[in-house]
Amino acid sequence: MTFDQLETPVPLVDLDVMARNLDAMQAYADQHQLQLRPHTKTHKSLHVGREQMTRGAAGLTCATPHEATVMQHVTDDLLVAYPVVGHAKLDRLFTVRDEVALRVQLDNAEAIDQLYAAAVRHDRAVAVTVEFDAGMHRVGVPSLDDAIALAHMVRANPPLEFSGIAFYPGHIREPVTSQDAALERLRHKVAQAVQAFTEAGMPPAVVSGGSTPTMWRSHELTGITEIRPGTYVYNDRTTAEIGACKWEDCAFTVLATVVSTSVRGQAVIDAGTKALGREPIRGANGEGWGALLDRPEVVVARMSEEHGILDLTTSDWRPQVGEQVRVVPNHVCIVTHLNDVIFGVRGGEVVTSWTVDARGRGYGALIGV
Amino acid sequence: MTFDQLETPVPLVDLDVMARNLDAMQAYADQHQLQLRPHTKTHKSLHVGREQMTRGAAGLTCATPHEATVMQHVTDDLLVAYPVVGHAKLDRLFTVRDEVALRVQLDNAEAIDQLYAAAVRHDRAVAVTVEFDAGMHRVGVPSLDDAIALAHMVRANPPLEFSGIAFYPGHIREPVTSQDAALERLRHKVAQAVQAFTEAGMPPAVVSGGSTPTMWRSHELTGITEIRPGTYVYNDRTTAEIGACKWEDCAFTVLATVVSTSVRGQAVIDAGTKALGREPIRGANGEGWGALLDRPEVVVARMSEEHGILDLTTSDWRPQVGEQVRVVPNHVCIVTHLNDVIFGVRGGEVVTSWTVDARGRGYGALIGV
Repeated sequence: MTFDQLETPVPLVDLDVMARNLDAMQAYADQHQLQLRPHTKTHKSLHVGREQMTRGAAGLTCATPHEATVMQHVTDDLLVAYPVVGHAKLDRLFTVRDEVALRVQLDNAEAIDQLYAAAVRHDRAVAVTVEFDAGMHRVGVPSLDDAIALAHMVRANPPLEFSGIAFYPGHIREPVTSQDAALERLRHKVAQAVQAFTEAGMPPAVVSGGSTPTMWRSHELTGITEIRPGTYVYNDRTTAEIGACKWEDCAFTVLATVVSTSVRGQAVIDAGTKALGREPIRGANGEGWGALLDRPEVVVARMSEEHGILDLTTSDWRPQVGEQVRVVPNHVCIVTHLNDVIFGVRGGEVVTSWTVDARGRGYGALIGV
Repeated sequence: MTFDQLETPVPLVDLDVMARNLDAMQAYADQHQLQLRPHTKTHKSLHVGREQMTRGAAGLTCATPHEATVMQHVTDDLLVAYPVVGHAKLDRLFTVRDEVALRVQLDNAEAIDQLYAAAVRHDRAVAVTVEFDAGMHRVGVPSLDDAIALAHMVRANPPLEFSGIAFYPGHIREPVTSQDAALERLRHKVAQAVQAFTEAGMPPAVVSGGSTPTMWRSHELTGITEIRPGTYVYNDRTTAEIGACKWEDCAFTVLATVVSTSVRGQAVIDAGTKALGREPIRGANGEGWGALLDRPEVVVARMSEEHGILDLTTSDWRPQVGEQVRVVPNHVCIVTHLNDVIFGVRGGEVVTSWTVDARGRGYGALIGV
């Protein structure tokens, strides 16, 4: 099947590039004796999760219980890296089959209380990693004393089990080549945390961390045992712009069709916010909402829901209505979340496809109307 | 069923507010003898499309052939307000059942060529409205002479049928109370277009236009016959901020749960970009990515994929972990597109739900892997 037989906009993944990305991250983790626990939020697909496990991942990371209920089909070791709060959400988490080791990452006493009550209700052990704030100020306990108090609380409440500490350095957005100072501060923070927990009599078996901009430098963080990268499997324009991958490592594109060239200096494609998301490039220069794979100087300068406006003022290229283009999105995790099916390509051929199994929230309709 | 039994984040629609919004728009159209052809991109649901048709809509508007294949089940009169380009997309359009009158809105000769070839291939008449650029510079023919040439081309190519002209004044983003000058320019442009087509011997039977910010002033555009509003059914924070609806007309909220209050001055909810989209308020002041229904001064100041950071510095309110909140999103059409099911509520009760039937792209998986 060729690209012109596909209805656009449609997500394509270059199979060879994806395989190379998967291999490279597993090799990096192996080289530095880090456990690789890929974050499945990027792909939400059993097919890709299976590829990660086959290559040697220790388990998978999820953002929600819904994602965990899907990923239980390819691994026996799941981390929900998010405080699971609320009766309905906790009950869903415990529908994961008994053979799966469950771990939850959290940062507050109320979340521990709720998780404990659910674990008792379902008569099941759950491991807990306590998240400390490494500087992003999103979630994570700011004070190590408070983090240690939470760990004590976990240990006092079986069937909860304290298994270690976690962090997410999402505030480090500098390009890879300018991260030295930020990474040194992070290194210090992680070392402090490990030392504090050790002195409190709870040396953390798991020290879980890492982020996309810092993914290839995780081993510089002394004490870290586990990394949870997500984006690396597909990569995107942001990852390339900050230097955490090369442009040719971008496996994921949105195939789109030029639908209008009526207005001078631009071409309109059928990929807008509902196909690309509206995610700015952060941590690096980069205008627009995506760029063409074959012409990175041409960017999606403006968007409506189903319109993307290609700015042609930076290029001599003048496309015809009907021509297809491939857009590298700024942030691929959002684009996955917009789609139900991904098409796998090799060269100009569409050779396979897979479903985005954990897209959406997994709610059935309540009452027909 | 009560809200605390729902797994968050989850979209809720207040049934009474939606009914009031539907009634008000139909009454406005009737009062001014305008055909109402609601844009279904906002809701993508057969349930809501049926509610619109029952109240007197002339037909429905879609952005894509996929949406048309869904909406064919509630009306016999469909407009795809978008240049339908590409073999696969055109073939999908023609799967719509024969009893449905199809109209396509376009702005270029290549789109006419392709539509003509498909209409011949499928032996089916298709009405065409030619879109002119009313100032937005997105799609739409900039020159009326060129627009007239396209109309001639349509007329010369049965089974295509020229049925009139269309525009989308998406550049008018001013609050309703500051639109006078922009609306006067638009009035002039529309009158010019009608006159030019009439003088060319093709008085347009259909003059189709309107946008959300201008929706209640469409009747001021002399010659307009049809309006295609979308957002009015649910409304959103942008619509309220620009004064095109009141805050209490916002029928759609995302129910979310506070999952962390670890960092001072903020509370983290489980609704981030994957639940709210990342759509700025345009055409009006308004920070953040959404605001709380009951506390509009509290906004979602920052987001990650599954995290929304509520800025508490503007409020004395200090929520507990586990507390639920209702977020009015900035742009509801994007939020619909993220969800498969909408829950209908009345007061604090969940009383029904409906599916987002036209969400996604409707592609089946190609080959299992």
